[in-house]
Amino acid sequence: MAVRAAVAGASGYAGGELLRLLLGHPGIEIGTLTGHANAGQRLGAVQPHLLPLADRVLAPTTADALAGHDVVFLALPHGESAAVAERLGPDVLVVDMGADFRLADPADWRRFYGSEHAGTWPYGLPELPGGRAALEGSKRIAVPGCYPTAVSLALFPAYAAGLVEPEAVIVAASGTSGAGKSPKPHLLGSEVMGSLSPYGVGGVHRHTPEMSQSLGAVAGEPVTVSFTPVLAPMPRGILATCSARARDGVSAEAVRAAYEKALADEPFARLLPAGQWPATGSVYGSNAAQIQVALDESAGRIVAISAIDNLAKGTAGGAIQSMNIALGLPEETGLTTAGVAP
Amino acid sequence: MAVRAAVAGASGYAGGELLRLLLGHPGIEIGTLTGHANAGQRLGAVQPHLLPLADRVLAPTTADALAGHDVVFLALPHGESAAVAERLGPDVLVVDMGADFRLADPADWRRFYGSEHAGTWPYGLPELPGGRAALEGSKRIAVPGCYPTAVSLALFPAYAAGLVEPEAVIVAASGTSGAGKSPKPHLLGSEVMGSLSPYGVGGVHRHTPEMSQSLGAVAGEPVTVSFTPVLAPMPRGILATCSARARDGVSAEAVRAAYEKALADEPFARLLPAGQWPATGSVYGSNAAQIQVALDESAGRIVAISAIDNLAKGTAGGAIQSMNIALGLPEETGLTTAGVAP
Amino acid sequence: MAVRAAVAGASGYAGGELLRLLLGHPGIEIGTLTGHANAGQRLGAVQPHLLPLADRVLAPTTADALAGHDVVFLALPHGESAAVAERLGPDVLVVDMGADFRLADPADWRRFYGSEHAGTWPYGLPELPGGRAALEGSKRIAVPGCYPTAVSLALFPAYAAGLVEPEAVIVAASGTSGAGKSPKPHLLGSEVMGSLSPYGVGGVHRHTPEMSQSLGAVAGEPVTVSFTPVLAPMPRGILATCSARARDGVSAEAVRAAYEKALADEPFARLLPAGQWPATGSVYGSNAAQIQVALDESAGRIVAISAIDNLAKGTAGGAIQSMNIALGLPEETGLTTAGVAP
Amino acid sequence: MAVRAAVAGASGYAGGELLRLLLGHPGIEIGTLTGHANAGQRLGAVQPHLLPLADRVLAPTTADALAGHDVVFLALPHGESAAVAERLGPDVLVVDMGADFRLADPADWRRFYGSEHAGTWPYGLPELPGGRAALEGSKRIAVPGCYPTAVSLALFPAYAAGLVEPEAVIVAASGTSGAGKSPKPHLLGSEVMGSLSPYGVGGVHRHTPEMSQSLGAVAGEPVTVSFTPVLAPMPRGILATCSARARDGVSAEAVRAAYEKALADEPFARLLPAGQWPATGSVYGSNAAQIQVALDESAGRIVAISAIDNLAKGTAGGAIQSMNIALGLPEETGLTTAGVAP
Repeated sequence: MAVRAAVAGASGYAGGELLRLLLGHPGIEIGTLTGHANAGQRLGAVQPHLLPLADRVLAPTTADALAGHDVVFLALPHGESAAVAERLGPDVLVVDMGADFRLADPADWRRFYGSEHAGTWPYGLPELPGGRAALEGSKRIAVPGCYPTAVSLALFPAYAAGLVEPEAVIVAASGTSGAGKSPKPHLLGSEVMGSLSPYGVGGVHRHTPEMSQSLGAVAGEPVTVSFTPVLAPMPRGILATCSARARDGVSAEAVRAAYEKALADEPFARLLPAGQWPATGSVYGSNAAQIQVALDESAGRIVAISAIDNLAKGTAGGAIQSMNIALGLPEETGLTTAGVAP
Repeated sequence: MAVRAAVAGASGYAGGELLRLLLGHPGIEIGTLTGHANAGQRLGAVQPHLLPLADRVLAPTTADALAGHDVVFLALPHGESAAVAERLGPDVLVVDMGADFRLADPADWRRFYGSEHAGTWPYGLPELPGGRAALEGSKRIAVPGCYPTAVSLALFPAYAAGLVEPEAVIVAASGTSGAGKSPKPHLLGSEVMGSLSPYGVGGVHRHTPEMSQSLGAVAGEPVTVSFTPVLAPMPRGILATCSARARDGVSAEAVRAAYEKALADEPFARLLPAGQWPATGSVYGSNAAQIQVALDESAGRIVAISAIDNLAKGTAGGAIQSMNIALGLPEETGLTTAGVAP
Repeated sequence: MAVRAAVAGASGYAGGELLRLLLGHPGIEIGTLTGHANAGQRLGAVQPHLLPLADRVLAPTTADALAGHDVVFLALPHGESAAVAERLGPDVLVVDMGADFRLADPADWRRFYGSEHAGTWPYGLPELPGGRAALEGSKRIAVPGCYPTAVSLALFPAYAAGLVEPEAVIVAASGTSGAGKSPKPHLLGSEVMGSLSPYGVGGVHRHTPEMSQSLGAVAGEPVTVSFTPVLAPMPRGILATCSARARDGVSAEAVRAAYEKALADEPFARLLPAGQWPATGSVYGSNAAQIQVALDESAGRIVAISAIDNLAKGTAGGAIQSMNIALGLPEETGLTTAGVAP
Repeated sequence: MAVRAAVAGASGYAGGELLRLLLGHPGIEIGTLTGHANAGQRLGAVQPHLLPLADRVLAPTTADALAGHDVVFLALPHGESAAVAERLGPDVLVVDMGADFRLADPADWRRFYGSEHAGTWPYGLPELPGGRAALEGSKRIAVPGCYPTAVSLALFPAYAAGLVEPEAVIVAASGTSGAGKSPKPHLLGSEVMGSLSPYGVGGVHRHTPEMSQSLGAVAGEPVTVSFTPVLAPMPRGILATCSARARDGVSAEAVRAAYEKALADEPFARLLPAGQWPATGSVYGSNAAQIQVALDESAGRIVAISAIDNLAKGTAGGAIQSMNIALGLPEETGLTTAGVAP
């Protein structure tokens, strides 16, 4: 019997990608779709690419509208998930694609989000050590941020193997869909085409503590993160260029071996053959993270790079992957590592 | 038992898209993949987005390598299909994604391609009147050109209903993948980004006679076509803006009714709700043609616009759709109308 | 002594391009700059590319702020120019980059703009027959719309020489800056990158009567226009593909000769060598219109294509060109036919 | 009397941009233009945006063709400049836009370029301490690489003030024109649009030693550089994100003061107001480097970011700026800090 899923926030980019993927998931029946400003409209008017669901009408985002489903995905603005989630009952699997339940330390939350901390849910990045166990059978999932997904997958093998010092330097560029669908002047096509623009520079981006949290847990010691996000002239994709000082005596062979070991059995986090580097164009629409690593002996640093689709593996695909684990379905159900290219 | 399919020309854009779609087709087992310059290489080296097939090795394109399959897809340069096809045997379903077998009139072929005509195969555009019947059980399929697919789907309802005069004016812009993967200066990213550039202007583009052929068959009289193709700064997609003088007394209601009737049961050629116009961004990676039509009463013309993905519905998706019909599978198997957006 | 110029609407795209060009104009001193929502801000905050003017502060758009200049450029929303212009005095050269004074027929204005007609000013397209004479010494200039500029330059030689019938079919694609800087969902980078989307289809775009007006004046008879605008994934540029049925007996040689004659002495409307087609990438930032024409003998149509920069020749460059004529300066002052490419 | 300049390599991107800028330089008369594969062609056929020079014919690149000019710009493939330069005579100002004469240490040259070192010429980055003095009156100029220009301008104030440790981590993304005009598969528009792809990772990019050389000279001690270049989906522009560990006790105020002091009088290296970050879209076609800096106190690092146009300030504009100094012309002649946007 199919699992029935509702999607709150179906008119945004994350919600739209989730629906696209759920349409190809053999075990899911798509139930209620909700929106805020677009409630009452046909989905076809706001997501014209989702023809199979074009005639669905968006309900307002209320707990009543979301009741009666086995799974509820929340693609809501930060801070709005808790109120909805607490009315959904403990037997419903609630998958939050917002930030509300990602951080373990309330002080981090207050510092970066400026409000009260809602709590901490099992973290939906199965590839991290212990990641799958935390999700199996869970009724609550906090989907990671898109940047932390890319960064954690690129660097956790190095920290797990003790190859690098606990200071990571990260420059990650994202396609514009990561900034959402609300119209703002700096997100106009005229502004973004042909332009790379950094933002949130100097340690103030909200995804920074999430990266420290995940890498620190793997390293077994605090990891400081210098993170610079960049808006890139493309609709989707994150390229995360991550580096850290190699510990003394670390060899290129040891680096390669550590990554091969950490990623050997991962269906979606894929180490490329030596010499081939990831590109966001190769993961468009796919749930794969393509990863490569090198040791720069002159600079004494390990450089690890990952490419993901911010909406797929970085949000909606990662959400489905974690849902599959929580529901006891095969982890790869409804997901693919084949991208749409060119 | 799965149908076993080979792909000749697996390293190009059409071949790559075909493989991406075949990976999601439940009735197909992907067999031999061949290439020309890339023979001997891993597919992962030339199609880095196709991770599930990354370790497949490209064979050279020979009849021997292609033998032993139920279906053989040919994604070869124009003029090379006939030699391969004739060695494949009459029981193998051969789907030619090149131009060789599209035109019925040898004079058209000689004029536009400058060589001897290889023959005419059943035409893989099921939406045209009589289109499905021609494909059922066939062992040979000529996949239409990408531009003729977009144009024929936009205009055939008007010609089928006798609404317009037999002179069509078409301006169609295509993403760069339509120009193939061979590196040429004018196809460099530096050249195409930020630029719209027409080519093949004045009736010389090779897809022109194919449009006349299809529209003329529907109209029951010769249809002249003024066709201007434009290279657009995007990787995929065709937007075809088509118009023709309305016959006397044609009303907007009659136009709408004709399109609704012609497209009512089509799974992939979809008339949008009145007032919503197609955009190529909505059909990226999908097999849908989105279509809209208007009557411009001041100018006395019907304007019909379609948007397709040139590699999907325009080539590889259309090929699979026709294959499904030829094999007796449900026509929609392995195909979707949901695009990848944004 | 330098001519002192004010710019009303300096924070938009047209105003910004005008300032960029005026910075390179040796005869102009840039005076007051005004804005609406951005009044009080540094120009550097809203036009970060205009470093030489970064510390200028935007005044509110009032007649008082604009007083005391020799030239006032109005880059205001449609309908706002008349109120400002009438307070500026008859000796000030007022150059309106909006639509208010372009149309001669009040009925056209009411039909397409829905308000009362403000009047008709000399039309700033010097290349049209009689165009320069109308501008010399004038104190009022209506700058043409960007699409009509591209279309009129492509087709007027054909109409002037009586080569074509009075029914033109035009498909013109524009970069997103033509849609302005106000944030709207469909103009987001995520939406426009990778997508071609038509709009205003079926004779409803406001630039349609302006095209009919200019071409009709050249032809000496009414010219109907079927016009389809398309939003293209690039920040700037218009490619206008224009065609009309050739009159009986018109030869390719006659077509070429007519265009050579009409454009022979034009500094900015340039007929390319035979066989070379315009591309918007070649006119980025330039005041040139690149033009090419062909006779499609099979279809019986003349196809003329022009490429312009919608903000330069299509708006701000055209405004300066007309201003130069009105002021008695050499027409090319401060303008170039060299584009920024790639 | 105008200075007469020849350009060797006029058909490439660097040569084309140089010509565009020289057209606006009041002291330069453009003389001989040479090409290699395109010798004998009209410039209009290979640089269709340079209408003012469209009828110039490309000569072959020989010393004879280049003789008789006051200035000769070399935009040739690496390794070809020395042979041409030595035949031009000591009184001709030779400006090499290639790499041949940039590096001081022959061992660096051999390691990264694999051939014999041709020598070292005065380095064309006037903003560096002592930079102008080295260029005044010089008859030979080595124009810096585009990445080293961006990186040196972003970081030299920090090293000059002793604020950071001698280990810099740099991730710099470039538009595709930086990869040149020779058609290669990975540079096709289909491949680059929508994709960010790293290359030359792990310390192997040829611009790495040039960065170490410049920063080390400023710091007074060796500076190791971890450099990751990324190909970005845009035709022009470099965004260089640079960071280094702050020395103990360095405050945000000290950082700001150091940058304000170092860049106070620079016409082209411009520190933005606090809080405003550079974007490549703001320097398109301009000779400005836009720079911003922040101290990330949590991570203990200074993050400095610069945006340049790789072809303008990064190559051809920088070449003209240095030429102006060498010839005793005002440094800003023919150059602008106003970009073309959007």
